[in-house]
Amino acid sequence: MGNTLGKLFSVTNFGESHGRLIGAVVDGCPPGLFLNVSDIQTELDRRKSGSFGTTSRQEQDRVEILSGVYEEHTTGAPIAMVVWNQDFDSNQYGKRLTIPRPGHADYASFIKYGGFADHRGGGRFSGRITAGFVMAGAIAKKLLVQSGIEVIAHTIELGGKKAKAASLEEIRAARDNELCCADVSAVLDMRDTIRQAREENDSIGGIIEVVALGVPPGLGEPVFDNLDGDLAKALFAIPAVKAIEFGCGFDTARLKGSQNNDPFLTDSKRITCASNNAGGISGGMSNGMPIVIKVAIKPTPSIGIPQDSVDLDSLKAVKLTTKGRHDTCIVPRAVVVAESMVAITIADFARRANIIRGVTK
Amino acid sequence: MGNTLGKLFSVTNFGESHGRLIGAVVDGCPPGLFLNVSDIQTELDRRKSGSFGTTSRQEQDRVEILSGVYEEHTTGAPIAMVVWNQDFDSNQYGKRLTIPRPGHADYASFIKYGGFADHRGGGRFSGRITAGFVMAGAIAKKLLVQSGIEVIAHTIELGGKKAKAASLEEIRAARDNELCCADVSAVLDMRDTIRQAREENDSIGGIIEVVALGVPPGLGEPVFDNLDGDLAKALFAIPAVKAIEFGCGFDTARLKGSQNNDPFLTDSKRITCASNNAGGISGGMSNGMPIVIKVAIKPTPSIGIPQDSVDLDSLKAVKLTTKGRHDTCIVPRAVVVAESMVAITIADFARRANIIRGVTK
Amino acid sequence: MGNTLGKLFSVTNFGESHGRLIGAVVDGCPPGLFLNVSDIQTELDRRKSGSFGTTSRQEQDRVEILSGVYEEHTTGAPIAMVVWNQDFDSNQYGKRLTIPRPGHADYASFIKYGGFADHRGGGRFSGRITAGFVMAGAIAKKLLVQSGIEVIAHTIELGGKKAKAASLEEIRAARDNELCCADVSAVLDMRDTIRQAREENDSIGGIIEVVALGVPPGLGEPVFDNLDGDLAKALFAIPAVKAIEFGCGFDTARLKGSQNNDPFLTDSKRITCASNNAGGISGGMSNGMPIVIKVAIKPTPSIGIPQDSVDLDSLKAVKLTTKGRHDTCIVPRAVVVAESMVAITIADFARRANIIRGVTK
Amino acid sequence: MGNTLGKLFSVTNFGESHGRLIGAVVDGCPPGLFLNVSDIQTELDRRKSGSFGTTSRQEQDRVEILSGVYEEHTTGAPIAMVVWNQDFDSNQYGKRLTIPRPGHADYASFIKYGGFADHRGGGRFSGRITAGFVMAGAIAKKLLVQSGIEVIAHTIELGGKKAKAASLEEIRAARDNELCCADVSAVLDMRDTIRQAREENDSIGGIIEVVALGVPPGLGEPVFDNLDGDLAKALFAIPAVKAIEFGCGFDTARLKGSQNNDPFLTDSKRITCASNNAGGISGGMSNGMPIVIKVAIKPTPSIGIPQDSVDLDSLKAVKLTTKGRHDTCIVPRAVVVAESMVAITIADFARRANIIRGVTK
Repeated sequence: MGNTLGKLFSVTNFGESHGRLIGAVVDGCPPGLFLNVSDIQTELDRRKSGSFGTTSRQEQDRVEILSGVYEEHTTGAPIAMVVWNQDFDSNQYGKRLTIPRPGHADYASFIKYGGFADHRGGGRFSGRITAGFVMAGAIAKKLLVQSGIEVIAHTIELGGKKAKAASLEEIRAARDNELCCADVSAVLDMRDTIRQAREENDSIGGIIEVVALGVPPGLGEPVFDNLDGDLAKALFAIPAVKAIEFGCGFDTARLKGSQNNDPFLTDSKRITCASNNAGGISGGMSNGMPIVIKVAIKPTPSIGIPQDSVDLDSLKAVKLTTKGRHDTCIVPRAVVVAESMVAITIADFARRANIIRGVTK
Repeated sequence: MGNTLGKLFSVTNFGESHGRLIGAVVDGCPPGLFLNVSDIQTELDRRKSGSFGTTSRQEQDRVEILSGVYEEHTTGAPIAMVVWNQDFDSNQYGKRLTIPRPGHADYASFIKYGGFADHRGGGRFSGRITAGFVMAGAIAKKLLVQSGIEVIAHTIELGGKKAKAASLEEIRAARDNELCCADVSAVLDMRDTIRQAREENDSIGGIIEVVALGVPPGLGEPVFDNLDGDLAKALFAIPAVKAIEFGCGFDTARLKGSQNNDPFLTDSKRITCASNNAGGISGGMSNGMPIVIKVAIKPTPSIGIPQDSVDLDSLKAVKLTTKGRHDTCIVPRAVVVAESMVAITIADFARRANIIRGVTK
Repeated sequence: MGNTLGKLFSVTNFGESHGRLIGAVVDGCPPGLFLNVSDIQTELDRRKSGSFGTTSRQEQDRVEILSGVYEEHTTGAPIAMVVWNQDFDSNQYGKRLTIPRPGHADYASFIKYGGFADHRGGGRFSGRITAGFVMAGAIAKKLLVQSGIEVIAHTIELGGKKAKAASLEEIRAARDNELCCADVSAVLDMRDTIRQAREENDSIGGIIEVVALGVPPGLGEPVFDNLDGDLAKALFAIPAVKAIEFGCGFDTARLKGSQNNDPFLTDSKRITCASNNAGGISGGMSNGMPIVIKVAIKPTPSIGIPQDSVDLDSLKAVKLTTKGRHDTCIVPRAVVVAESMVAITIADFARRANIIRGVTK
Repeated sequence: MGNTLGKLFSVTNFGESHGRLIGAVVDGCPPGLFLNVSDIQTELDRRKSGSFGTTSRQEQDRVEILSGVYEEHTTGAPIAMVVWNQDFDSNQYGKRLTIPRPGHADYASFIKYGGFADHRGGGRFSGRITAGFVMAGAIAKKLLVQSGIEVIAHTIELGGKKAKAASLEEIRAARDNELCCADVSAVLDMRDTIRQAREENDSIGGIIEVVALGVPPGLGEPVFDNLDGDLAKALFAIPAVKAIEFGCGFDTARLKGSQNNDPFLTDSKRITCASNNAGGISGGMSNGMPIVIKVAIKPTPSIGIPQDSVDLDSLKAVKLTTKGRHDTCIVPRAVVVAESMVAITIADFARRANIIRGVTK
């Protein structure tokens, strides 16, 4: 279980890294949304490997829409989408997992699934499943745009190298550089860090910031189905995420109330805030300010350096060097994934509040 | 909606800060668990105000168990529990909200509920609703203890003052000091910080660490219903939480894979890890190591310093000074609340994995 | 688990027949609905015993609203309501169940809950829990009325005695007679049947028809969350229900398509149907015609006649005569319960379709 | 929404009658179940057209398993399965629906989806979607068999012709005749009825009985998630179902308590019942006796006889003769579908009670 997310706008994910395909079923997309393959493909292409520091596995990831779309409009029926796996190499993997890779889900998965999991390429725990997140996110984003909601993400730190604060225009433009970093002056430095890690057969992580603009106040439920809580849950679904902050996040714990509270402002027509320490969420609900989330991505666990592990059969200590093809740094590829999970979550809450509908004619 | 959390072990929360009561219904507790009022009361007492820097509102918070327990054992039926509100003073609150308090949910709530919400004392957005979390958490903890799972939390930072790393024994003893801090040498300093903030009519926040011991590997679902994702969702239900880290959290983004991966160790009988950077969770599942979570608590938004707000009727700028009775620092009171939310979540996943049962005879 | 029903308008039920109370928490009621105690009490009074053939247990069933209502309007927060048990007599019940009553849930409950269930008066399996259905149904009905939706039920068969077809006015008036039967000419006959059964220490069942008027076309989801499916699920929650029909029900299986299909009619402005064999539901969705449901109620299993049972300890055959106070026929009391479950379900789907809102100012 | 069913064993359905495929994703199948394509294919073949009185549309319905199975065993990951549509003819359908077919979901669908639904061949409302039910049901049955639970169904009435009561062996053998009727003496009569209806371009319905053997006592939750309620909900998902009975069903309403109650028997080792009027379910839970359900199937709404309808554009009355290829009687094809829905539901409850596991090695 646990492969479906969402209440009125939901995503069911299936497929494995070295299985036949990765798929997603989106349920709850309203009818009448103009949608074609290129809407999805554009987003999937942003997730593809090929840029600097990414795996040499070259998947075309051509999306096929299998249901739910008729005459280029959504019908209200579930939308099934798949990308077929093509360029995988399972030679590095035995039939069954015997030596768990440090930093991976291998060991917990072995216990949970009794050795029956398809472990090849990480199986269900591979970053490759996020292709399904992106397909669903593409639909969510298209729905949100209709209601004036925009979700954008960018790399703000990579291997310890921080980007400078960026303007909205710079953040929007970040998708054009290969590290998805809005601060072009930092890109060179980040590239160096990746190169160095790659030369060392090591890997690095980073931090992504996701911004959602145009979210009206009042999305999210009090007490348990908070907007921040469900955004966090959605983002932790991305395999490498280890921490999440809204607004000032951990720094807010060091501020006084008088510093941290965002004062209200008025232009006699509209109410807004003088600051956004809350990151757009108060009491579990959107408050009308931009939603700002920081997401920590750990370094890819697969590295080419020998590591300590244990043989599951003999329970003896062994040295393991991960082979296979892997990313030195998945942060830039994860940018569109983080966007997708935030868009999916907001679309779900927007459906509950009935602020988005599909008909676009 | 949004007042029920959990799949096989669930909690429904109801009540308002200045309404008649705060209540919780726990569904999914297995039959046969020995349970009496004092099991719940002990935990509720840990949440009570009265210690240094807390509100002068003095609620006795005597729990009543209304259903689901027969002859001092759980029956398998839903367990309804309430505490009646007694010492509230709604004089500071008009019939309807007119001026939203900065840092509070007032404005978003006003938009969402069209002015119909019971805003007195924060209504559903008050920290007081967490009494319901603690009542449910008490049952969750009792269930978990039977399976060898222990959840403990403590204050690790308060108003910028950091506690030193603590031993497990010190963490367990933390509940005995009024700040719930395992580092007794830091308590004096933290008290000074609270005193200073109180003299300035200001407020401060802090950081709580929650540790879950004895969680077997494999709890949590891959892809969407991750253990970390659902723990984060549950913790963000605590009104003041703004950020969450597992294990090394944001710092992991600055480590290399070779530093961050936790090597596996063996004593020829059992597999464990040499480090716990992952905070006990890999691939969305528990991995057998202690689960370690850091939770950032913002400073209480209610302060006695004039703040900028806007009159919702006239849309004119106004200065607002929050009256009423409030905490200067809610971090120590939130310790048991954070424990509760973690225990509730783990109990739910433990039920899904069928590793806990109720019968204790 | 299993004590919460509904997706956007939900009901959580708690309490036991001989426990302290019966309670319900309604979540998802929109804010701004004018609601006071008498709205609930009026409905609860329709369920009370006291009329001919009902139990001598005399519960006042005075509802208390504990949360979610402020200044006589719903706030959008969960509405907790309770009735306190007062007139129960547990003398007929031992501490633990030893001899299961035929026709009751005793045996299955004993297996499921390992003997820990509160079996007194049937515990969670008592018809008394339906007081919670009625409290929630009262709110659902009030919401629906605002959108022009009316739910009414009446007794159409009792102990084998059938009522004649009735007009809408007669059905609406049925609540005024003690058997809730729209055909007053049949009431005398039905009373005789009850009297006879009572004299024999036996019990009888009957059939209730529920009609929902004004439901717009399109409520209900295709494939799995069908309106008929969820109505059936909600109605089977009533302890004595054994069968459900929509429209012609089982008779439809004997019609030809040309007889069964409801032809479409038009007055050039609106589309309607010439017949209603479908009972207002096509393809799992409301089709704009009245929803018509027949519900079979089995005879009360508690009878004063010796029956064959088995002692659970010795596994020896024993004769059991149920004592305690029981209804000879619960059909008339179940009428408002059936209405309530239908109203709750339609309210939930109406919320999903966003056709009801709460604000009534 | 509404295309996913189940809590711990769930099915997500997608695809359209004249779209590219029909698909199902089963989530919650435990790891280690031996499963290959022929397990699914065998069941799908039972649903195929081709027999007497069925549509001339000839779909091969070759299932493909796309995920969740590795080395011929389930992995614990979601199992996606599809059949590709091949022999459909959309010539009878315009681009958009203009004239709703009586007895079909067309009109309600038009209102609900604003004309955007893929109406060709009934789209999401076609009986063809039940191919997805059968694929999922095949897995559920295989899981249940491991725990000694068997689900079988048969035709007990067709076009008003009733089958005689049958032995368990006869019921098991029913799948071998083309009408799935355990009473071979009735088959000829039933065939005549079908032939006559076909000659008249009309259609007929019938009644299916589903029996579940070996279900242990205690499956199903009290109050809301009743086993009977969820079975009913699952069965109403079959497009043509209009009524459902457990055990004596409507007849129980005409019995006295002393007749209807099933007396308990004992052989000093095990408790059973002398009769099964309850149909195996008491208080919403399985009671250890066979679960017996009757399901009314309406006559196929598509008939070759002119019917009254209304043009949705002009709102003028029109005569409609449904063309396309249709079944005169879908009852025999629905037998395996009813089995499937019952098996899926029981598997879900069995998972909640933890009585089935996957590992078969």
